[in-house]
Amino acid sequence: MNTRTILSGDRPTGKLHLGHYVGSLTSRLSLSQQATYSNPLKILIADTQVLNNDVSKSEHVKANILHLMRAYNAIGLKNCQFILQSEIPYIFELGTYLSNLVALNHNLRNPTLKSERQMYGDNLNMGFVNYPIMQTADILIFNATDVPVGEDQVPILLYGNDLIDKFHFNFNCNIFQKITPILSSSPRLIGVDGKNKMSKSLDNAIYLDSTDEDIYQKVFSMYTDPKHIHVSDPGQVEGNVVFMYLDVFHSDKEEVNDLKKQYQKGGLGDVKLKKMLFEDIKNVIAPIREHYYNLSDETLLAQLQEGSEMAFEEARDNIKRIKSFIFR
Amino acid sequence: MNTRTILSGDRPTGKLHLGHYVGSLTSRLSLSQQATYSNPLKILIADTQVLNNDVSKSEHVKANILHLMRAYNAIGLKNCQFILQSEIPYIFELGTYLSNLVALNHNLRNPTLKSERQMYGDNLNMGFVNYPIMQTADILIFNATDVPVGEDQVPILLYGNDLIDKFHFNFNCNIFQKITPILSSSPRLIGVDGKNKMSKSLDNAIYLDSTDEDIYQKVFSMYTDPKHIHVSDPGQVEGNVVFMYLDVFHSDKEEVNDLKKQYQKGGLGDVKLKKMLFEDIKNVIAPIREHYYNLSDETLLAQLQEGSEMAFEEARDNIKRIKSFIFR
Repeated sequence: MNTRTILSGDRPTGKLHLGHYVGSLTSRLSLSQQATYSNPLKILIADTQVLNNDVSKSEHVKANILHLMRAYNAIGLKNCQFILQSEIPYIFELGTYLSNLVALNHNLRNPTLKSERQMYGDNLNMGFVNYPIMQTADILIFNATDVPVGEDQVPILLYGNDLIDKFHFNFNCNIFQKITPILSSSPRLIGVDGKNKMSKSLDNAIYLDSTDEDIYQKVFSMYTDPKHIHVSDPGQVEGNVVFMYLDVFHSDKEEVNDLKKQYQKGGLGDVKLKKMLFEDIKNVIAPIREHYYNLSDETLLAQLQEGSEMAFEEARDNIKRIKSFIFR
Repeated sequence: MNTRTILSGDRPTGKLHLGHYVGSLTSRLSLSQQATYSNPLKILIADTQVLNNDVSKSEHVKANILHLMRAYNAIGLKNCQFILQSEIPYIFELGTYLSNLVALNHNLRNPTLKSERQMYGDNLNMGFVNYPIMQTADILIFNATDVPVGEDQVPILLYGNDLIDKFHFNFNCNIFQKITPILSSSPRLIGVDGKNKMSKSLDNAIYLDSTDEDIYQKVFSMYTDPKHIHVSDPGQVEGNVVFMYLDVFHSDKEEVNDLKKQYQKGGLGDVKLKKMLFEDIKNVIAPIREHYYNLSDETLLAQLQEGSEMAFEEARDNIKRIKSFIFR
């Protein structure tokens, strides 16, 4: 009787923005409503993983956990189990067992590690060197089978499946189900500068609790076509951030196509388009913002604690079973 | 109010022998009786560490844990807390935090890792690469301050103290006491072949549950001086295993000195010496063996469980405190 469980997660490194909304939050909404999964959607807040990149970031983790919980609730996620990674010590115990099945050079071949190592050489911290193992442990400790990811994260799941094979071979058992990636079809939303991904330091992101004024200001600062000076000038659609966003947020796709044609011909001004986009984004953000500060910190932390306590028991039962195959 | 706690430990890789008795067990006996330490002597059975060298060894771990517990009880260890490493998941959680403070190349400079890497190259498993971190976590999770070690293990404790400095610096706190090595003055007891350290596969060890017949056979197989053929021949004391053992086990040191002189002059036979040594070793082993099978498996496991449960609570309280400095 194999049940399927979805595990999704975020690192608490900052407030969530429109990029997250489009990239992962909406798909979680729909996944949490699918009846094919008998278990609730698990959402892991990976706080210990924040330390891998920079231990000094640890001081913002507490506030960022609250931002994540606010966002999850505000978009209307229901039937989810929220789990705080640092409350589940069995993840790290499982990671330790798994670490004995992986060679150093195998880990260093992981694409993310490879590119980090090009930057830091062997000054790379051991937490980072271990991250593919630990991320696999995140999944296996909860018997998760389905993991929503972007294309770039597929290698880490394949690595995890390889580790499952090694475990089964070495301990002569068959206890883990293979991990299946749920590939996201949603586009990557670039920052309003049209150059970088959304980030706080670049001030190019629209956050889920943005005010109308902030949305307006961000939309009107969007990069369009620098050569499109007069309304009558023909404009370029490719690389035009306003059209990228309209493709995502304007529900009438035919209208967007017509607007693109008109823009390319000339006679359509940026201001008109930006006003339209402002309305579209406002319609997305307003209901989220309305609920963003609905719940008190205490309520949010209690939600997280409830899910984590349940997860602790699940993990404890599972590690007991896993150990029964290691130490026979 | 800084209390001092001693942590000692063994990996459950086999039965304990006379080498362990001389090298660590007797010193634990005396340490456990010292009133300067307000806490009981902690003895960690490092079962998860067995996997670092060879995961296939995991299948003998259960039986070997019982052998360790038998030996501890049989030599008369009292007022000790026995802890099974795999029952304390917080060790691995702490190890994960610590891993973010250590660079890959720093770990690879550790002497033990260096020599292993000369053998295996980068095929070294990640469990082994992490071992200095995890061994530090073993100590810090229990706020242990004093660790009995041989000379060769001092570098790993210095590494641990360096890691404490890094933790205090990065998280701006001062929560760990530095680790002090308790250097063992006891000699390393070589195998009865006079060439290798005691090991099961070489059949050169005298175990703590050996029968008199077995002791007799092992003593009489001891390497002496191959040129000492007749009783009247002068014999060599250096490299003579019987004298090495007499130095350790014969209580009358003056008598041993006289015997050495007589042996070097000629006129003293190996058989006489071996009979003497047999009596000495029998006097050590007999009372241990008598108690070796006194306690049932259930009683021993209950002892270990009691200590581990207490340790689980201690570790849980401590990790909570440690985390309060990481995630402020």
